[in-house]
Amino acid sequence: MSDTEFVIEPGRQDIVMIHVFHAPREVVFRAVTDPELVPRWWGPRFLSTRVDVMEVRRGGLWRYVNVDARGREYGFRGVYHDVVAPERFVRTWEFEGTPRDVALETVTLEEVPGGTRYVARSVHPSVEARDAIVRADGARGGRESMERLAEVLAQRPTRT
Amino acid sequence: MSDTEFVIEPGRQDIVMIHVFHAPREVVFRAVTDPELVPRWWGPRFLSTRVDVMEVRRGGLWRYVNVDARGREYGFRGVYHDVVAPERFVRTWEFEGTPRDVALETVTLEEVPGGTRYVARSVHPSVEARDAIVRADGARGGRESMERLAEVLAQRPTRT
Repeated sequence: MSDTEFVIEPGRQDIVMIHVFHAPREVVFRAVTDPELVPRWWGPRFLSTRVDVMEVRRGGLWRYVNVDARGREYGFRGVYHDVVAPERFVRTWEFEGTPRDVALETVTLEEVPGGTRYVARSVHPSVEARDAIVRADGARGGRESMERLAEVLAQRPTRT
Repeated sequence: MSDTEFVIEPGRQDIVMIHVFHAPREVVFRAVTDPELVPRWWGPRFLSTRVDVMEVRRGGLWRYVNVDARGREYGFRGVYHDVVAPERFVRTWEFEGTPRDVALETVTLEEVPGGTRYVARSVHPSVEARDAIVRADGARGGRESMERLAEVLAQRPTRT
């Protein structure tokens, strides 16, 4: 099951991913900005994720490494432009294998009845760079990340 | 006179500005990354520019303030994603009046016969945000910046 929605229009430079989580906005924001939790939800299930650095503040650096079953590493990195708890953060995003194709990711959290609407908009330097990510099945990684994050949120202790 | 070229295609999210300077790449790179020089060339001629901060390194912050004849201030700011001397830098870019419309600017310097080709590509979070900048005559500010930067470069001491 997945209720992750994508908006990927032909000829545009962005990818929008939307998922509604059944958790309060503050809880979702804390989860997605917590370096300890990132390895539990970020990326597709067949890769593991290591957080090398994650400074969640304006000008802070981040770097995640995906590791496959054979131990090969794939690095991703960027800097935070803004962090406005609990509603949004904006950061740059680069796959180290294609360092000239830097994207800008804006994650916005909105309160909706029953939960939180998570919207991640990634805008790419060209249509071609955006389409390359779509062809590389970037949506699969995003969809699995959202599913895994929903699982992490479901496991949090209930406040009574 | 102006030999600044713009590529602004309908329905896309980016603005590309290109100018060929008659100066070596290292000289152009040093000029565009020097906080002392920014007030002499950045922005349209009818505004003055103050540099509040400009940390030209990965994760560094920048903030420029345009001041009009009546003393009103217009702030712009962002963070540097990457600085690769003398060939390129990548930074986020936000007009503080519209803080949700963060753009990503990539400046690339290429050596060409007789000088340096400066290419600034700004990619915006939506077509609408991009078009709003075009309507606000953002190209004028860019064109005048390029003319003013050419004047600054022409005034540099000749090496003998």
